[in-house]
Amino acid sequence: MDIRPILLVVGVLLATLGCAMMIPAIVDLINNSADWQVFASSSAFTLLIGLGLFLSARGIPKSLSIRQAFVMTVTVWITVSGFGALPFYLSGIVPTYTDAYFEALSGLTTTGSTVITGLDDAPTGILLWRGILQWLGGLGVLVMAVAVLPMLQIGGMQIFKVEAFETSDKILPRASQISGSITSIFVVLTFICFLFYLVAGMDVLDATVHAMTTVATGGFSTSDGSLGSFDSMAIDLTASLFMVLGSIPFLLYVQFVGGNPKPLFRDSQVRVFLVVLLVAIVIVWNLERFSGVNPGLFRLVDAIFNVTSIITGTGFATDDYTLWGHGSVAFFFVIMFVGGCAGSTSCGIKIFRFQVLFQDIRQHLHKIIYPNGVFIKKFNGRPLPSSVSTAVMSFFFLFIASFAVSAVALNLTGLDMLTAISAAGTSISNVGPGLGNIIGPAGNFKSLNDPAKWILCITMLVGRLELFTVLVLFFPSFWKN
Amino acid sequence: MDIRPILLVVGVLLATLGCAMMIPAIVDLINNSADWQVFASSSAFTLLIGLGLFLSARGIPKSLSIRQAFVMTVTVWITVSGFGALPFYLSGIVPTYTDAYFEALSGLTTTGSTVITGLDDAPTGILLWRGILQWLGGLGVLVMAVAVLPMLQIGGMQIFKVEAFETSDKILPRASQISGSITSIFVVLTFICFLFYLVAGMDVLDATVHAMTTVATGGFSTSDGSLGSFDSMAIDLTASLFMVLGSIPFLLYVQFVGGNPKPLFRDSQVRVFLVVLLVAIVIVWNLERFSGVNPGLFRLVDAIFNVTSIITGTGFATDDYTLWGHGSVAFFFVIMFVGGCAGSTSCGIKIFRFQVLFQDIRQHLHKIIYPNGVFIKKFNGRPLPSSVSTAVMSFFFLFIASFAVSAVALNLTGLDMLTAISAAGTSISNVGPGLGNIIGPAGNFKSLNDPAKWILCITMLVGRLELFTVLVLFFPSFWKN
Repeated sequence: MDIRPILLVVGVLLATLGCAMMIPAIVDLINNSADWQVFASSSAFTLLIGLGLFLSARGIPKSLSIRQAFVMTVTVWITVSGFGALPFYLSGIVPTYTDAYFEALSGLTTTGSTVITGLDDAPTGILLWRGILQWLGGLGVLVMAVAVLPMLQIGGMQIFKVEAFETSDKILPRASQISGSITSIFVVLTFICFLFYLVAGMDVLDATVHAMTTVATGGFSTSDGSLGSFDSMAIDLTASLFMVLGSIPFLLYVQFVGGNPKPLFRDSQVRVFLVVLLVAIVIVWNLERFSGVNPGLFRLVDAIFNVTSIITGTGFATDDYTLWGHGSVAFFFVIMFVGGCAGSTSCGIKIFRFQVLFQDIRQHLHKIIYPNGVFIKKFNGRPLPSSVSTAVMSFFFLFIASFAVSAVALNLTGLDMLTAISAAGTSISNVGPGLGNIIGPAGNFKSLNDPAKWILCITMLVGRLELFTVLVLFFPSFWKN
Repeated sequence: MDIRPILLVVGVLLATLGCAMMIPAIVDLINNSADWQVFASSSAFTLLIGLGLFLSARGIPKSLSIRQAFVMTVTVWITVSGFGALPFYLSGIVPTYTDAYFEALSGLTTTGSTVITGLDDAPTGILLWRGILQWLGGLGVLVMAVAVLPMLQIGGMQIFKVEAFETSDKILPRASQISGSITSIFVVLTFICFLFYLVAGMDVLDATVHAMTTVATGGFSTSDGSLGSFDSMAIDLTASLFMVLGSIPFLLYVQFVGGNPKPLFRDSQVRVFLVVLLVAIVIVWNLERFSGVNPGLFRLVDAIFNVTSIITGTGFATDDYTLWGHGSVAFFFVIMFVGGCAGSTSCGIKIFRFQVLFQDIRQHLHKIIYPNGVFIKKFNGRPLPSSVSTAVMSFFFLFIASFAVSAVALNLTGLDMLTAISAAGTSISNVGPGLGNIIGPAGNFKSLNDPAKWILCITMLVGRLELFTVLVLFFPSFWKN
């Protein structure tokens, strides 16, 4: 395999990351924070390596084989996280490189699990860098979803390839053009979110960081208490709105802006997503009734915010929702896996896969009852190819299997059962907080042991790359001839 | 829908159950235990209802439509459990009918979760009745697996229909004949197990009850300490051997006895099952090393026994294996779902489904790497029809979904998270013990609240009937015209 095209892409992205590091460097320099040197030197080093890789691989053919595309995707995420971790490590805000890597990967995968405490007093540059990492990660996910994954036929995502490229109105035929449009929309959405947060009462730094981590459904905050420390319904509802907007397929926004608003309002995945969200909110709002507590209207806002935060895989919290009466622990654990729509920044199993699974089960039940009947599965009004069903079902099995392996491995490092299974679940779905006293919504991943942190890094990466992208590399046939 | 054929079958089975109740009645009468009246009156009542149903439905056509077969299967298990619970309720060994029903259903589904404490001092008749229930349940499962489920195309079990009825050597063409052969083999296997237990040092009652609950992979014992109270390696290894024998497809024994031993030794499901078992035993045996404890040879016997007990869904215990070092809780939780082979008395996801799932994933990964390649999926040397893949994958998704719903519902009744998820897992897989202080291997289901017990009853039934049999009844199309 010719690795030069891979080095080229890694080089370009590292150079971009190096440039992005200059932003916190400049902000820290203006604020007279000594940390500016950390960012400046990280930036210089990253730029140097990035440009070096770029120059060494210049002039080679830019087309990628499918196998190269797989290796590239995985390499990019691992390498960029490695360099993104430098400012955390060099600034001393985390004690080890393991912690720094965990924080950077958690940021870039838009997971939002953190090992840093004392955020409220942390240097501006560090807070900004955490926001930038999640924002770049979110953008990376969006571009990957339209430009890379459909080509690789990952886990059923190929149905969106069909939709994006073969519609009769061919809005934007090429992947790179679509990526450009998506980037613009992502920038605009972030800016609107920033304005909303400002109006709701945040200062410029808080609004900037939270806008970046909300639209990317990431969940990093500028406070140990997450958004709960602002104690503002306006902020909670703003966050809820933009977490939902970040969980909708960005291609629909591209069509909307391009003068075709129908798909956005008629997309079955979006509709099912909103219904699922609504039902989950109503359930959580009423969970306390089972324990004899009458939830007020304030609790409705809490329910809206926290349910949206978990289902979209963002991971902000206002409260330890696991204390909201019986059933809340298990319920929040289950909705952790749901995820938003494909082609958005959210992760998890994703709504379209549940739609495909339900179609398959419906068809199967029909066949059981009417063995000679004929039933056609549909998705968004079109017939559903059986290859997509197989892909989705294989994805579901591998998702559960990866989750189980991760949970057992974490338990083996000494984590208690609840911490182990919720950490595995929150990582593979890229949500953020887990359950229990240690890593719950009121907790932090800092105290976990190093092997557990590395296991979680692998789990976050596997989840973010839709499993197959990583697992295919462990398949012997992949490396043959 | 004509319900008379259903009443006929229920009637016959209730009459059989009534006859079976005479055995503990006679034993208690010989032992001068006042409980004989409980069994005699339960027997009379059950016989009366059974014969009444039988007579009222006599003379009607005995053929069943597919829809009738579904309703019949579910009705049979619910009704027989209801009558099987009578002796527990009337004897006063349990305080409520809920507890009695739970115990009977747990017995008949070969789950083995118990709400009775003080087994060591319990009347002989009760101990015997628990054994008989599991033995009858095991036999019912075996007959259902060859005679009913393949016809209903349940969850991929139809591949065994093909194997049983369409082999070139057509060993026994009709389902009723096969059922007869399987019953004989089940009786003989139980008797051999009984002799082994006697030789290993059990008295006649213990050997009888344990032989019935071992071969049925049920797990009811005559002691609160389960087999651990015998503290005998010979007994542990005997139990391990017969739990394995009870988890192998009984059709293979039929062929073996009929002079065709090859299928038993060449069956891929059996081979994979034994390999999975072996690997799990070696892992568990070595788990303590991670905590710095050197496991001796004695621990190997413990590992063999307890891993076999959980994977086969039996649920005997010698020890609280969740204390065997880090990782043991999560690992035992995961292997709870594995199960034995299809067409045996064991439950859970079952080995053949994992084989089908792995074939599908292999094919899918191949297609990702070589989009134009052609790959044929095989099971046991034959091509695997894609309808089986869909059935297996739908089964897997519904299994996980049912487990999650059950866990949330249990958590909602007030059970802590570990108790809730392990109770849901142990019920849907019909294993027996859960995890944690309450329902763990050293615990008991007695203290759970009544709603939790009914949720567990539903979960055990759904798991035992391979999900679809129950869930299809909630599908509106089932009841149309």
